[in-house]
Amino acid sequence: KSFIDVGPDSHFPIQNLPFGVFRPDSGSPARPGVAIGDHVLDLSAVASAGLFGGPILAGSDCFHQPNLNKFLALGRPAWREARTTLQKMLSSTEPVLRDNAELKKKSLFPMDKVEMVLPIAIGDYTDFFSSMHHAKNCGTMFRGPQDPIPQNWFHLPIAYHGRASSIVISGTNIIRPRGQGYPSGNSPPYFGPSLKLDFELEMAAVVGPGNELGKPIDVNNAADHIFGLVLMNDWSARDIQAWEYVPLGPFLGKSFGTTVSPWIVTLEALEAFACKAPEQEPKPLPYLAEKVSKNYDISLEVQIKPAGQKDSCIVTKSNFKNLYWTVTQQLAHHTINGCNLRPGDLLGTGTISGPEPESRGCLLELTWNGQNSLSLKGTSRKFLEDGDEVTITGLCKGDGYTVGFGACSGKVVPAPQ
Amino acid sequence: KSFIDVGPDSHFPIQNLPFGVFRPDSGSPARPGVAIGDHVLDLSAVASAGLFGGPILAGSDCFHQPNLNKFLALGRPAWREARTTLQKMLSSTEPVLRDNAELKKKSLFPMDKVEMVLPIAIGDYTDFFSSMHHAKNCGTMFRGPQDPIPQNWFHLPIAYHGRASSIVISGTNIIRPRGQGYPSGNSPPYFGPSLKLDFELEMAAVVGPGNELGKPIDVNNAADHIFGLVLMNDWSARDIQAWEYVPLGPFLGKSFGTTVSPWIVTLEALEAFACKAPEQEPKPLPYLAEKVSKNYDISLEVQIKPAGQKDSCIVTKSNFKNLYWTVTQQLAHHTINGCNLRPGDLLGTGTISGPEPESRGCLLELTWNGQNSLSLKGTSRKFLEDGDEVTITGLCKGDGYTVGFGACSGKVVPAPQ
Ligand SMILES: [Ca+2]
Ligand SMILES: [Ca+2]
Ligand SMILES: [Mg+2]
Ligand SMILES: [Mg+2]
Ligand code: NI
Repeated sequence: KSFIDVGPDSHFPIQNLPFGVFRPDSGSPARPGVAIGDHVLDLSAVASAGLFGGPILAGSDCFHQPNLNKFLALGRPAWREARTTLQKMLSSTEPVLRDNAELKKKSLFPMDKVEMVLPIAIGDYTDFFSSMHHAKNCGTMFRGPQDPIPQNWFHLPIAYHGRASSIVISGTNIIRPRGQGYPSGNSPPYFGPSLKLDFELEMAAVVGPGNELGKPIDVNNAADHIFGLVLMNDWSARDIQAWEYVPLGPFLGKSFGTTVSPWIVTLEALEAFACKAPEQEPKPLPYLAEKVSKNYDISLEVQIKPAGQKDSCIVTKSNFKNLYWTVTQQLAHHTINGCNLRPGDLLGTGTISGPEPESRGCLLELTWNGQNSLSLKGTSRKFLEDGDEVTITGLCKGDGYTVGFGACSGKVVPAPQ
Repeated sequence: KSFIDVGPDSHFPIQNLPFGVFRPDSGSPARPGVAIGDHVLDLSAVASAGLFGGPILAGSDCFHQPNLNKFLALGRPAWREARTTLQKMLSSTEPVLRDNAELKKKSLFPMDKVEMVLPIAIGDYTDFFSSMHHAKNCGTMFRGPQDPIPQNWFHLPIAYHGRASSIVISGTNIIRPRGQGYPSGNSPPYFGPSLKLDFELEMAAVVGPGNELGKPIDVNNAADHIFGLVLMNDWSARDIQAWEYVPLGPFLGKSFGTTVSPWIVTLEALEAFACKAPEQEPKPLPYLAEKVSKNYDISLEVQIKPAGQKDSCIVTKSNFKNLYWTVTQQLAHHTINGCNLRPGDLLGTGTISGPEPESRGCLLELTWNGQNSLSLKGTSRKFLEDGDEVTITGLCKGDGYTVGFGACSGKVVPAPQ
């Protein structure tokens, strides 16, 4: 379908075309690109060559920026125009790029040679709590098996503000945080490197145009404010979190690092994998009631490569469609009080656990807060150890092609002395 | 002391020189300024005239920016250099500006003619919970009189991430948020305009250079990372907050708007009003133990001008020195897990309540969650009504002069239909 080679297992066929930001080499300026097969197409080069001829993008400098925020602010008509232009340009029957050797040389880079950077400047990052299975497991552990899920959970997509400054791109090492944990008996609280470092399997929505303060976004228009999705690992220090979070929620147990995958897969590319969201009972209030309530069938997997080992082990398999609250409901809820969203804001889904024990999205659930060990080919873990590398992958299986997210990885390195 | 007239009650004598960002008129670009008496001195004009001759600022374009972030990133040596230069330039014995009529015309603007804007681009906003009296009152209301303050409170400065996008400058109307409140009995949750809109009397620290991810700031160096303080009103919708905050903390009950005062008063200007912080028992862990633990004697006052009335009523009088955890402890705690702070980040103190009933910092405490009414010259309030205007002021009384913060005001306007 494209004149560029795309292997049968590639995450990046012409049906996908996810957006990211990269440097061709570490000295050169960051610029937007799309992934195609094993290559990255430089959108600044394509724009400079005058190949974005549509009414919105022809005069725009949105691809001559070090992040995608300006493009995101333009909204869905611009996103559609870019996708249409790029799908045409990359198709095997279209000569404009295919037969222009000089432009190909200037604009196509092997993916394994470029440096990916954070694709967006994130003004605010919000993390939701939208998997019922995750809420139930955590509630059972900490509140007991009667009524494990708080009453409010079924009425609103619970969320908290996260830390924007410490969001990092896949491949960045995660420094084990130090902090306080629960005191035992009458001694002072524990202080030192976290003893319960965890991952959280999440995805996150990247916000498009956003809204003015005081002007909520209708749930039925919310999809027009979501550019696409990324994979996210919301690293969590369970001991720090458990001690600090009453009454104002998670803080230092989360803010030491959050990893996102480099490629933003657009809602257009995901549309072929849309599926019905779960029935909600009780019925949501009118401002959360959607005419069409959509999830996406995205297979998710977490692998751990234990310190010092060569092989990775799959530790969980889940799916984006396990979410109870949709991303459009999350976004509508976020703005119902008038809160303004800005282009590039990030909305995490919360840990995406499924119904089966093998589909739990974090070690807290998988080892039941360290009560059990998870065996990993010749070793085992209750929580993460220094040197462990965690990789999240996600993909949608189409008919003869795959729309994938690539990987979201991070390796744990020791706390500072 | 200055050749510019400074009235005896002015908040802005030459001893203060707080930094802000303003537009001389609404069409012109925003630029940094300092307040002196009833005037604003345009720092971009002063810089263009070559009057910042010191080693750090002479070659810098930090005052040709629409916010103070670049100046904040330069750190305390640059801040000191600017203060020294400006105090000299504005002193009555210094002719360079005093006798240059053209430059005075270009650089000095009557304060009541300019438009103040947010002085910083705020990457992340954090709100602490550092007044013991506030913690105790809230705990007593919601957890009962036995052990009203959670055990962790005495070991760490509790905080949560706030919403950066909805921070607004003093004078911006606050749109009453809509949202969900507790259901009564088996009916669905309340939905509509908040019925319990409140103010919170706070101050906030503006972060200077900040730190790299993974490199905590030592508590004894923390003051070098704090440029100064502003007044802050952390508007809160108590009904929305009460229903949503378990288990992940405040979210939409806060994120509809947070007001800050336009002038950042530097720690240098506050140094004359430093006082000893309260004894802490139990002793803080070593990473929070300061060689010198400082508060500042800043008198704080909240006035409400009820809708339709001409006069304001003082509803509380408190003091910054009522804080149990110091701002330097807050900052050190914030980074102990490796979290990175960036120039312009904002650290709210939390509601600053004092020990007396008249020094409580929000209506929740003043009316005991609406159980009592607060009488306001001919009317009364349990919570804020549409049209009410809340103004926070703060000042330090020196010997014959006042170092003040000006005002932090906002008027409540009705929720959208
Ligand atoms: Ca999470
Ligand atoms: Ca507060
Ligand atoms: Mg995180
Ligand atoms: Mg607020
Ligand atoms: Ni934030």
